[in-house]
Amino acid sequence: MSTADEALEKIKAQVEAETPEDITISSVTFEGPELVIYTPDAREIANRDGIVRNLAQTLRKRINVRPTPDALVPQAEAEARIQETIPEDAGVQNLDFDSTTGEVFIEAEKPGRVIGRHGETLDQIAASVGWTPEVVRTPPMESSTVSNVRNFLKQERDDRRDILERVGRQINRPMTADDDWVRLTTLGCCREVGRASFILSTPESRILVDCGDKPGAKGEVPYLQVPEALAAGPNSIDAVVLTHAHLDHSALIPILFKYGYDGPIYTTAPTRDLMGLLQLDYLDVAAKEGRAPPYESQQVRDALKHTIPLDFGNVTDIAPDIKLTMHNAGHILGSAVCHFHIGEGRYNVAFSGDIHYKDTRLLDGAVNDFPRVETLILESTYGGKNDYQTDQADSERVLKRVINEAQEEEGHILIPAFAVGRSQELMLVLEEAMRKDEIPTMPVYLDGMIREATAIHTAYPEYLRESLRNRILYDDENPFLAEQFQQVDGGEEMRQDIADGDPAIILTTSGMVTGGPVMSWLRLLGSDPDNTMVFVGYQAEGTLGRQIQRGQDEISLGDSSGPRAERMSLNMAVETVDGFSGHADRQGLETFVETMHPRPEKVLCVHGDESSTNQLSSALYQNFNMRTFNPKNLETFRFV
Amino acid sequence: MSTADEALEKIKAQVEAETPEDITISSVTFEGPELVIYTPDAREIANRDGIVRNLAQTLRKRINVRPTPDALVPQAEAEARIQETIPEDAGVQNLDFDSTTGEVFIEAEKPGRVIGRHGETLDQIAASVGWTPEVVRTPPMESSTVSNVRNFLKQERDDRRDILERVGRQINRPMTADDDWVRLTTLGCCREVGRASFILSTPESRILVDCGDKPGAKGEVPYLQVPEALAAGPNSIDAVVLTHAHLDHSALIPILFKYGYDGPIYTTAPTRDLMGLLQLDYLDVAAKEGRAPPYESQQVRDALKHTIPLDFGNVTDIAPDIKLTMHNAGHILGSAVCHFHIGEGRYNVAFSGDIHYKDTRLLDGAVNDFPRVETLILESTYGGKNDYQTDQADSERVLKRVINEAQEEEGHILIPAFAVGRSQELMLVLEEAMRKDEIPTMPVYLDGMIREATAIHTAYPEYLRESLRNRILYDDENPFLAEQFQQVDGGEEMRQDIADGDPAIILTTSGMVTGGPVMSWLRLLGSDPDNTMVFVGYQAEGTLGRQIQRGQDEISLGDSSGPRAERMSLNMAVETVDGFSGHADRQGLETFVETMHPRPEKVLCVHGDESSTNQLSSALYQNFNMRTFNPKNLETFRFV
Repeated sequence: MSTADEALEKIKAQVEAETPEDITISSVTFEGPELVIYTPDAREIANRDGIVRNLAQTLRKRINVRPTPDALVPQAEAEARIQETIPEDAGVQNLDFDSTTGEVFIEAEKPGRVIGRHGETLDQIAASVGWTPEVVRTPPMESSTVSNVRNFLKQERDDRRDILERVGRQINRPMTADDDWVRLTTLGCCREVGRASFILSTPESRILVDCGDKPGAKGEVPYLQVPEALAAGPNSIDAVVLTHAHLDHSALIPILFKYGYDGPIYTTAPTRDLMGLLQLDYLDVAAKEGRAPPYESQQVRDALKHTIPLDFGNVTDIAPDIKLTMHNAGHILGSAVCHFHIGEGRYNVAFSGDIHYKDTRLLDGAVNDFPRVETLILESTYGGKNDYQTDQADSERVLKRVINEAQEEEGHILIPAFAVGRSQELMLVLEEAMRKDEIPTMPVYLDGMIREATAIHTAYPEYLRESLRNRILYDDENPFLAEQFQQVDGGEEMRQDIADGDPAIILTTSGMVTGGPVMSWLRLLGSDPDNTMVFVGYQAEGTLGRQIQRGQDEISLGDSSGPRAERMSLNMAVETVDGFSGHADRQGLETFVETMHPRPEKVLCVHGDESSTNQLSSALYQNFNMRTFNPKNLETFRFV
Repeated sequence: MSTADEALEKIKAQVEAETPEDITISSVTFEGPELVIYTPDAREIANRDGIVRNLAQTLRKRINVRPTPDALVPQAEAEARIQETIPEDAGVQNLDFDSTTGEVFIEAEKPGRVIGRHGETLDQIAASVGWTPEVVRTPPMESSTVSNVRNFLKQERDDRRDILERVGRQINRPMTADDDWVRLTTLGCCREVGRASFILSTPESRILVDCGDKPGAKGEVPYLQVPEALAAGPNSIDAVVLTHAHLDHSALIPILFKYGYDGPIYTTAPTRDLMGLLQLDYLDVAAKEGRAPPYESQQVRDALKHTIPLDFGNVTDIAPDIKLTMHNAGHILGSAVCHFHIGEGRYNVAFSGDIHYKDTRLLDGAVNDFPRVETLILESTYGGKNDYQTDQADSERVLKRVINEAQEEEGHILIPAFAVGRSQELMLVLEEAMRKDEIPTMPVYLDGMIREATAIHTAYPEYLRESLRNRILYDDENPFLAEQFQQVDGGEEMRQDIADGDPAIILTTSGMVTGGPVMSWLRLLGSDPDNTMVFVGYQAEGTLGRQIQRGQDEISLGDSSGPRAERMSLNMAVETVDGFSGHADRQGLETFVETMHPRPEKVLCVHGDESSTNQLSSALYQNFNMRTFNPKNLETFRFV
C-alpha cells in the first residue's frame, strides 16, 4: 500500500469517527486540494448542521461530499424531476450529469431562480434525485470562449479527474525536509515591466508565480533555463499560481506543458477563461507576424485542463507546507492578490500581482487585509516619484472634452486599449456619457478581442462591482449591450468603410500598439490631422505606443528590420488621458502599503521600470521604515 | 569533425603561421588550460627567444611545447646521459620518464644544482636527450602524503591525460549564450563559520568555489541539494576552485565525484596534497566515531586525480569566459586569494578565502593588488567590532609567560591546534624561544597529523616566507627538525607515559576540540589543575573548544547524546592567547580592504558569525563608502 493510500485509510477512519453512527462512509479520496467523501448518505450529511464544517476543522481540509452511484436516481428520471422542480422563468438552458462525481450542472439564465430562497429549490432537487446540483449562469452575452472552455472541460472530465487525484496525492505527500527556509527567486519582471515570473520555494515545495512575456521585447521571456527554475525537471515545481490573465503574466504558461509539466495551475475561473483567450490570440499574432510560436494550441488546452479554479477568500492547500488564498486585486476581471501561508505560521508572503487600489466602475479596489504577512512582492508600474495620476472623475472629464473636440473636427477617435480591463472600463464611461448626453451618441467600434472579452465579463458578474453586477443581472440594463457598441467583424473592408464614414470612436487592441488591428487603424487614420489617438493605458518602454506617446511622428509598422517594414508619417493628434490605468498610481501604491493590515516587514518592488522600482523602494523605506528591495532578475532572496 | 577538432585545426594553422618556416609543427592539442604543441623541433623553439611568448600572446593561451616521440633519446640511454650531466651533490633520488608528454621528472635533494646557473644544466640535458626535464624537490622531511600523491599521479598518468584533454576541450568550447550576467549563489558559509561553498555563474559557465564542512555541526554540509547547485547534473559545473585545504573549505569536494562530477579542481600544489591528507583523516575520524562517511577514499583519489595545480600569479582559462588567478592569502600553506576575470573585462570577482593580512613567521601576508576587481567576497572570522587581536609579538610574550608559569607548576601544556598552519607557526615560535632560552627547553609532542603536515610544508618551501625558506633549504637549520619536536606515534600508551612524565608541551589536533587525539589528552590532563590548556586559534560556535574557552567546566567527550557520552569535570587552567590566528583580525580585514588595489565597489562579508559579518559589513560601508552585503545562505546575488 502506498503512503498516500495509507494516509487515506487513516483519514477515512477519522471521518468515520467524526460522523454520526447512522452515516455510512464508502470511501475518501483526494481531488486536488479537496478531500472527497463518497457516501450513500450525502443528503443526510448536507441536511445536518455542522457535520461538514466539523470535518473541515478537524481534518484541516476542504471537504466535498458526494453521493455514491447507488444513491443516484437514473439520469433520464432525474432530468425530468429537475425540470419539473425548477420554475420556468429560470431559463434553464442545459443539464449536464457528471456520473463520476454525482454532480449535475444546471445552466440557467437566472441562477437565483434555480437556487431558490435560501437554497430551497436546490435542496429539493438534491433530495429528489440524489445528484448534487451545481448552478452555472448562462452568460448574458454569448461568449465563445466561455462555452468552448466549458465544453472542453466537460469532454476532458476523465483526464481531469486523474489530474486532480494525482495533484491531491502530491499535496498530501508526507513532508521530508529537516530544514526550513523560505526563498524567492526572480525569473523576470524586475526593473522592467513584463515577463512576470517568480519561484517561491521551501525545502519541501516550489511554486511558480506567473510566467509572462514582455510586451515590445520579443524573445525576452522569463529565465526558465537557469538551473533554479526547472533544472530538476519540469515537475520539480508543485504548482503554478497565476495572478491574472494579462500576457505579461500568463503568456508562457503553456510552454511549461511543452517541457513536460503536468501539475496544477491555480487561478480564478475568469482568469482561466481570459488566459485561454489571450494565449490563443498570442499564437495567432505570432503566426500573423511570421514568428514561430513558442508552443502550440494543444498546450493552451493542456493549461486549461490543469487549471484548478479558486474563489476569492478560500484558503487552499497547494503543497504540503503552503496554503494559497486569492483576493480581489481590482486590476482586471479575476485578477488576484495571492497570499501564501507557509508552514504552520512560519511565514507569509503576498504577491500583489497588478493592483488597482481604488474602486473603478468595473471592479472593487484591491484587498490589503490579511491574517498575517511578513513580505509583500509589490508591483511598481507607477512607482516613480512623478507617477501621480489624476482622479478618474477628472480623467473622464478630459476624455469627454477630447472626444467632443475631435467630433467638432469631424475626426475619428482611435483608442488603443487592452482587450481585457481598460476596454470595459471605457465602455462604461462612454455608455454613461452618451446616455447623459455629455458627448454625442455615435458608434463605438470594438475591434480585436474586445467584444469577446466583454462577454466573458458578463459570464462572471460576481467578480464585478456590485452596482454593475446588479445592472447586468437584474435590471436588464446591461451597459455592455448598448446599441452604439458595434463589433468590427468585417475585416479590412469594414475598417475602410468606418474610416471613410462619419465620426466614430474606435476601441481596439493591442493596448501598447505592438500589433493587432490597431496597426490597420493607424494606416487608415494616422495621416489625417483631424483624427485623434487617445492613450488611456500604460505604454511600456520599447513599445510603439510609447514612441508615439513621446511624440515620434515617423513610425514603422510591421517588423521594423525586416522586408515588411512600412514607415509612415503620423499626423493625427495624439492625446494621453491618464487616470484610466488598471494600475494603482504612486499614491495608490503607497496607500496600499500604508493601510495594509498587517504592515509587512519587507517589500520587494518589482514590475516597473528601473527608476520606478527604485523610487518606490526608497519611498516605502523612508515613509514606513520597512526593509525594501529593488531586486534584479535572477536573484534569490531568503526570507527565513 | 567535431567543433573542438575544427578549432584545433585552425589553431595549428595559426601556430604554423606564427613560427619560423624551418620549424615543423606535428600536432596541437588542449590539455586542461594549456595548448600543447608537439614538434620534432622542441629544442629549437626553446632556444630561440620569443617564439613561445609570441604564440602565447597571439593565441592568448598558455603554451606547452613538447618533443615528438622520434625526437627522444631512448630511456636507458637518456637516463645515463642525465646522470652524467647532473653534479653528484644535487642528490638525485629518482628519474621518471613520461613518454606521453616527453617529460622527465628529476627528483633531487637540491633542485638548484639540477637547474644550474641560469638553467644551464637543464638546457644541457634537454639538448642531449630530447626529453623535457622537470625538477622536483625531495622533501627535506619525509612526507608519506607527498610521496603517495606523487606515486598515485604517476600511476594514473594515462587517465590524467584523458581528463586534461576533456577539460581542455570544455574550456575551449564555443560560447553560445546571448545574454550576459554574473551571479553568485551562497551554498554555505554565510552568517556562520564553516561549509564554505559558492557558485559563481555566467550564462556560459558555472564555477564552484570551495565545498567544506562545518566544524562542530555534523551534518550541516553545503546546500548542494538545491536546484541551483547541481540539479542540472554533476557536470553542470565547469570547475571546482579550492582556496585552501582546511576541511571547512575542502571536506565535501570528494562527494562531488560520488555524484558523478568528473571535471577539474584548480588549486595550488600544496593545497592538493594537504587536501588529500585532511580528507583521508576526515574519513578516518568519521569511522572512529561510528558515523557513515559521506564518501569513500576512492573519491579522495578521484579528487587528487582531477586536480590541476596552479602557481600563484598564473592567469589561467578555466571556462570559456572565465580566467582564474591565484595569489598568496597568508592563511596556511598554499592558501589563495582567488581572482576571477569574467568575459573580456566584463567583471572581476575576488574571493579572499581565509586570509592573514600581515606577514607571519611562516608566510607572507595576503595579496590585495589586482588589475581589476569590482566585487570582493571577504572572510569575516574576526569581523566583529571587538575582534581586534594583539600583535603576534605581544602574543608570543604572553604564550611564553603562560608556558613558564605552567612549567613552574610542573604541569603539562596542552595546545589544540589545526594540524595545518597554526601548528607550524607555533613550532617556529617555540623553537626560537627555546633556542634563545626564553622558555625552558622541553619536549614538544606533536600528536595527530601535525608532523606529517609539517613535512608537507618542507616539500613546498617556495610557498613559505623567504627567510624561513632559506633556513630550510640552504642553511641546514631547518627549525622543524629541532630535536625537542617529538612525534606521538605510540598511541594511548605513549600518551599515558607523557602525561605521567615531566612537564612538556603537547601540540595536538583537532584545533577546535571536536575530535581527534586532543580528546585523549583532555581525559589524561583535564582533571589536574596544574595543567594548562592554551587556545591559540579561532573556536567556532558549537564546538567543544568554544565551550571550554567560555569557561564551561563540565564537559562531554564523545557523542553527547549517544551511549558513548562521557562527562568529565575540567579542572586544568584554561588560557586563550590570541594573535596567533591564521585569520586577519578586524583591523587586518579593514586594512586589507582599505589598501586593496583597486578598491572594490561591492563587498560581501561571509565566513563569520552573524554578528561578525554584520558588523564588518556595516563598518566597511561606513568607512569606505562601498556597497556591502551580509548574505544569508541560499541567496543569489547578481552583479551585472
